[in-house]
Amino acid sequence: MRELILSDVDDIARGAAILGAGGGGDPYTGRLLAEAAIEQHGPVSVVDIVEVTPDAVVVPVSFMGAPTVSTEKLPSGQEAIVALRTLENVAGLKATHLVPIEIGGMNSVIPVAAAAETGLPLVDGDAMGRAFPEAHMVLPTLIGVSCTPMVIVDDKGNSMVLDTVTNQWAERIARAVCAEAGCSVFTVDTVLRGDQLADGLVPGTLGLAQRLGETVRVSMDPVQSVVDTLGGRVLITGKVADVDRRTSGGFVRGEARIEGTGEDRGSVLRLSFQNEHLLAERDGELLTSTPDLICVLDNETGEPVTTEGMRYGNRVAVLGVPCDRRWRTPEGLRLTGPRAFGYDHDYVSITGGTK
Amino acid sequence: MRELILSDVDDIARGAAILGAGGGGDPYTGRLLAEAAIEQHGPVSVVDIVEVTPDAVVVPVSFMGAPTVSTEKLPSGQEAIVALRTLENVAGLKATHLVPIEIGGMNSVIPVAAAAETGLPLVDGDAMGRAFPEAHMVLPTLIGVSCTPMVIVDDKGNSMVLDTVTNQWAERIARAVCAEAGCSVFTVDTVLRGDQLADGLVPGTLGLAQRLGETVRVSMDPVQSVVDTLGGRVLITGKVADVDRRTSGGFVRGEARIEGTGEDRGSVLRLSFQNEHLLAERDGELLTSTPDLICVLDNETGEPVTTEGMRYGNRVAVLGVPCDRRWRTPEGLRLTGPRAFGYDHDYVSITGGTK
Repeated sequence: MRELILSDVDDIARGAAILGAGGGGDPYTGRLLAEAAIEQHGPVSVVDIVEVTPDAVVVPVSFMGAPTVSTEKLPSGQEAIVALRTLENVAGLKATHLVPIEIGGMNSVIPVAAAAETGLPLVDGDAMGRAFPEAHMVLPTLIGVSCTPMVIVDDKGNSMVLDTVTNQWAERIARAVCAEAGCSVFTVDTVLRGDQLADGLVPGTLGLAQRLGETVRVSMDPVQSVVDTLGGRVLITGKVADVDRRTSGGFVRGEARIEGTGEDRGSVLRLSFQNEHLLAERDGELLTSTPDLICVLDNETGEPVTTEGMRYGNRVAVLGVPCDRRWRTPEGLRLTGPRAFGYDHDYVSITGGTK
Repeated sequence: MRELILSDVDDIARGAAILGAGGGGDPYTGRLLAEAAIEQHGPVSVVDIVEVTPDAVVVPVSFMGAPTVSTEKLPSGQEAIVALRTLENVAGLKATHLVPIEIGGMNSVIPVAAAAETGLPLVDGDAMGRAFPEAHMVLPTLIGVSCTPMVIVDDKGNSMVLDTVTNQWAERIARAVCAEAGCSVFTVDTVLRGDQLADGLVPGTLGLAQRLGETVRVSMDPVQSVVDTLGGRVLITGKVADVDRRTSGGFVRGEARIEGTGEDRGSVLRLSFQNEHLLAERDGELLTSTPDLICVLDNETGEPVTTEGMRYGNRVAVLGVPCDRRWRTPEGLRLTGPRAFGYDHDYVSITGGTK
């Protein structure tokens, strides 16, 4: 067990925004929430997966919606706690730990805020090892854990408890509610027992985010430091020449075009995203795809550039980073490969070949 | 208290489809469900509002969705019971009576089926005195009764419990869920105590529907018999010349054009509908509007023609029928007048003038 203090939040938010592959919601808003909660309630206890007892009740708390909206429609900070208490009442359980559902922007620091407010320890890990746009795209789905009961709470005070026959139905219905409620809600779902964490979580991603955030802050060559920390490679260095972005169906979707500079002059990288970056094609060749991570960084500072923050003229480096190995299995690819998002492509791994 | 037997269902379904003002869902499907339930479980007890004790727990059960869909996507018959039991568990209550939320097509006979299956008595009345397309358009909204907790159940086994800050939010979120779940769900909501029935229900509408259905079945001049029973008047007699109908956002919406025949030759009546008929304009003049009832009948048989059943060539009589007086108050009109549906019209009453 270790303590997470106020000054750690900035590094975690930065690192998690890189691991979020462009998504996970605006890290700035989440950071403010987490910092305010720690200032008021004190530091958060963080435990490793191996420290958690088998009968522990580990609850993910998260934001659901379009990142474009989260930057303008700010949460009250109480939604996550209301959702947690509602779930406890409905399901007749008592949370012993909190955990991020994904490691990405807002959704890696929302649980920090909730842990500070409730005094519950936070498990170091998450259910994706990155951010994915849809609620059922979590490792627990692969091991048969239900997303429901799922509690959804909005900023107006509306709440609901959802029970569905599949995790994909939980995503579909929750997304419809999310869109109607203004594309920004808080959810508590996919409760895990302590003995399900090894299979249901990617371990250590909160610590990884913190180290990554620190590396970027102190390094003289931050982009290279990110590659050294995460593996993978730089797909292009260049300038954002075009962003076509629309907020529809509770997501932000679109494409971006990066024109190469320096050694990459003459090349063009095309990114396709749905909250997160999903495909990276260079000069017509698919270089890497979901579930591998496609991360866009400011080329000078190494700061993460989210899908909703990307602007014409940004000087960026685009990285391909290998995903957790469980996503590369046939079941994993069915859930999170390119075809799960409607693209007519097989998975192309950043570590080589089509798996 | 009286008994409702198998042979009563046909008349109730017919009469309720007339009172449904074109909406309430396909009465044929609902009738089959109710007849099957009575055949299996025996007759249903029907009680008048004045027979219900003040501490009774009166629960409306209903179908929500687009009538166009309900004719093709048939319910399993168990959805309403599952929804009822879920509500009882969540809200910690025990239903003593069931009641229709609206008197219209399917939604007047679904509660008959549920009453037969559960053995609970059915209250003779409903919360609208007609059918309206949206869940918050009920008399209980006017007296401050919440629609929530609302339980929503679909045919696949998905369910949810909704708690909202206003009844309009219950409608918005439930409709989004309904659309995602295939435009056809069952809902249990707007629970009333016995002492709220006088203000929250229109009394006697189940019995009225039965008398009306019988009248149409036996009368030599069924259209005139309906006018004699309900009041109001015939707006036009003619032929359906055009129907523009689309299923969108969980509703069926559209317009229909009726060309006058006989004494009405040369005149054209234009109907606008959203599940139910909402406006009737003859030769450009608004003759009557929601919340008054606009009912389309087969001109020969008096059988009701629903908004989803209306076809080119149908010979029809269109009736305007006065609504319950509580809908004509300023609060009632704010909830169910033309402007509540986005029409730039004041209410025009069938009994004369703009109220």
